Amino acid sequence: MSGGSAGLSRRAVLGGAGAGLAVGAAGGAWGGRASAHAPADGVTLGAARVPFHAARQGGIVEPAQARVEWAAFDLLASTGRDGLAALLRGWSAAAARMAAGEPAAEGENQIALDAGPSSLTVTFGFGATLFDKAGLADRRPAALVELPAFPGDALDPARSGGDLWVQIGADDSLVAVHALRVLMRLATGLAAPRWLMSGFARTPGATPHPMTGRNLMGQVDGTNNPRPRDPDFDATVFAAGGDWMAGGSYAVLRRIRMLLEGWDTLPLDKQERIIGRRKSDGAPLSGGPDAVERTPVDLAATDGDGVLRIAPDAHVRVAAAASNGGAAMLRRGFSFHDGLLPDGSPDAGLLFAAYQADPARGFVPVQQRLSRGDGLSRYLRHEASALFAVPPGAPAGGYVGQQLLEG
Amino acid sequence: MSGGSAGLSRRAVLGGAGAGLAVGAAGGAWGGRASAHAPADGVTLGAARVPFHAARQGGIVEPAQARVEWAAFDLLASTGRDGLAALLRGWSAAAARMAAGEPAAEGENQIALDAGPSSLTVTFGFGATLFDKAGLADRRPAALVELPAFPGDALDPARSGGDLWVQIGADDSLVAVHALRVLMRLATGLAAPRWLMSGFARTPGATPHPMTGRNLMGQVDGTNNPRPRDPDFDATVFAAGGDWMAGGSYAVLRRIRMLLEGWDTLPLDKQERIIGRRKSDGAPLSGGPDAVERTPVDLAATDGDGVLRIAPDAHVRVAAAASNGGAAMLRRGFSFHDGLLPDGSPDAGLLFAAYQADPARGFVPVQQRLSRGDGLSRYLRHEASALFAVPPGAPAGGYVGQQLLEG
Ligand code: HEM
Ligand code: HEM
Repeated sequence: MSGGSAGLSRRAVLGGAGAGLAVGAAGGAWGGRASAHAPADGVTLGAARVPFHAARQGGIVEPAQARVEWAAFDLLASTGRDGLAALLRGWSAAAARMAAGEPAAEGENQIALDAGPSSLTVTFGFGATLFDKAGLADRRPAALVELPAFPGDALDPARSGGDLWVQIGADDSLVAVHALRVLMRLATGLAAPRWLMSGFARTPGATPHPMTGRNLMGQVDGTNNPRPRDPDFDATVFAAGGDWMAGGSYAVLRRIRMLLEGWDTLPLDKQERIIGRRKSDGAPLSGGPDAVERTPVDLAATDGDGVLRIAPDAHVRVAAAASNGGAAMLRRGFSFHDGLLPDGSPDAGLLFAAYQADPARGFVPVQQRLSRGDGLSRYLRHEASALFAVPPGAPAGGYVGQQLLEG
Repeated sequence: MSGGSAGLSRRAVLGGAGAGLAVGAAGGAWGGRASAHAPADGVTLGAARVPFHAARQGGIVEPAQARVEWAAFDLLASTGRDGLAALLRGWSAAAARMAAGEPAAEGENQIALDAGPSSLTVTFGFGATLFDKAGLADRRPAALVELPAFPGDALDPARSGGDLWVQIGADDSLVAVHALRVLMRLATGLAAPRWLMSGFARTPGATPHPMTGRNLMGQVDGTNNPRPRDPDFDATVFAAGGDWMAGGSYAVLRRIRMLLEGWDTLPLDKQERIIGRRKSDGAPLSGGPDAVERTPVDLAATDGDGVLRIAPDAHVRVAAAASNGGAAMLRRGFSFHDGLLPDGSPDAGLLFAAYQADPARGFVPVQQRLSRGDGLSRYLRHEASALFAVPPGAPAGGYVGQQLLEG
């Protein structure tokens, strides 16, 4: 199954009494929610579902849902390998049922009963610290090492790392929060919550035409992501090789606070120069007035005076140059807005997530460049960081992580 | 304009190039989002709009949107009456533009540019403390006094009260958060943010059939709200009289944390007994197996052994008894889920909001009874409280509060 068809064909909807009916997932799987879905007559947003059991885990190539919950857990000392297997079995079973719009367990709390699955995806990841604790040290993938420190990092260890990661996305907040509560209850006595983060992306239907979503700085964000139809999409995003991670991916998470008060006072042309794209529609500054969002970026283009149209420190130049011409990772972030900090400034920004076959060839070199040469970095603060191995999906009857634990 | 038609006819949608086209706001204006809207062909959730200029402010009778932001502000000492008028003029003008899907001001940050108004409503309220500070002590309404203390209250003053209140609701989170940022910027130098809260209700389309929304305890919540077609709806919800508050309302806000860990371990029949309604569909326990959500509650009904079907301490009995048979207030709350408390329990519950003509005849007597005799109160913690006078709406060209400031 290719990444592309995984993303597009797995998004199915159920109308009325379980009649399966596929809708084209209009718009892209890459990055922001690219469009309004137009559900078939009588089919609602709530009925849209992404099956849990598949070759790949959900929540990677599917459009970002309206709400996301990220939760990291640490394994309790007493849990061990068998306890971990039990936890992952329980989590997978509950996630599969909820993704199908069924109660997570017999007689469980009914809070999401009538809101449907609302495109619920649950994605599980393993941190580097998990392996020793679970007696699996010899099975830790080589790619799963601590990320290096980057200039400007202001990381809070309490909100970074974690043995286990769960990402829950849904287009209805109650569905997402309910799933989080269910999975937290199942972890009781086996793993302790380490940190939680909540974010959002565009609600389906909020734009009438296909268009990549915007972040809290107002930029169209996600345009130059790799796309499922690109020939190297799978090789970029998913791990190859014959081990238990084959078909999985590595997720780099960064809670990036935006210094919005400074950003918002910049004039429009300054904001655009810092990114290298027009704010109104995301078109590259190299493309002239007729450029559109998808016009290819031309890093060599100059104006009449020989000045580069995309500035030397423009975010897209520094990010692209580091990726050697090809996209290096699939970004699938969410915005967050958690109120005000003690100094009155907004505690808001981007829950950045990047998926790649190998972080050493994806996120790390790009962030090394960005943290030194990116004009945008003056308006950002990286506050939390984590790297998780996201194993492949579970076939029907199986659970996520089974290849690791029973392989 | 009656409360009913205000709620139902004001929800209009704009298709393509501004073609006005009304959709029936399927479902109720009362409490939870009652149904999926079914937008006309080619019309998206994002294009749905609630005009700002109207006899009554938006955000009271309209269905609760998928996301809400509440912000309280305190007037700066230097602001005074003229500064307050300037602030309210600026806020109203920006709110009106954003509700129409236009930029809040020329050249402003474009983050909500393409997501449409997404049913954005902005509601302004005045706290009792505002009037002295703005030199308006003689115009403070008699109904706007501090709420009494209730048994069990555990109120945090830093998250309670406030001179000014802004409620922002939208079906797309970025639209809501953008509006919040715009209004906060406009307050700079005039009023300082006091507290912020974020909540959510059902995403439109998340249920295929009209049904009241659920709260985080899993209950169908909002069923027995007054309805716009009730003969006493206006008299219950909106202030009468000839002064500047005529057509306005009083909003009681309570941040009510739910003790979900205890609640979730109760067996279903216990949970149902505590409310007095079935959890699956919200039908009253007095109605037998054929009852549906809207079956009238029969507080006198007994089972074969003469035991009351709705328990003496059931929430609906205590709440209803206190309201003298008729609904006493319009509840329009939102769920919140703000992560974990230091002890690991969820910081989650209900952003309770009740609108009424007079809090002394609405919220206060009901909460006096509930805080003493309600079985549900063992699973609740009232953590913050506020009462705001919500003035009537502003006609085209006017601003909210004009009747107070220029009357
Ligand atoms: C809050 C922080 C960030 C913001 C607001 C931001 C914003 C943007 C925007 C607006 C674009 C142009 C549109 C697009 O192609 O998506 C972009 C491109 C990109 N960004 Fe970021 N970004 C952030 C952080 C990062 C980080 C931490 C990385 C990786 C280390 C990264 C990697 C990239 C890449 C690879 C591209 C595509 C460049 C190209 O090939 O054209 N970004 N970003
Ligand atoms: C987290 C706290 C609360 C929860 C979970 C809750 C839940 C419910 C539920 C499930 C119902 C039945 C369905 C309905 O008619 O809406 C209900 C009814 C009601 N509640 Fe609450 N409630 C809470 C707090 C309050 C408070 C603070 C008040 C007012 C002081 C209140 C006043 C009422 C009233 C007036 C009714 C309608 C009773 C009737 O006439 O049938 N509730 N509530």
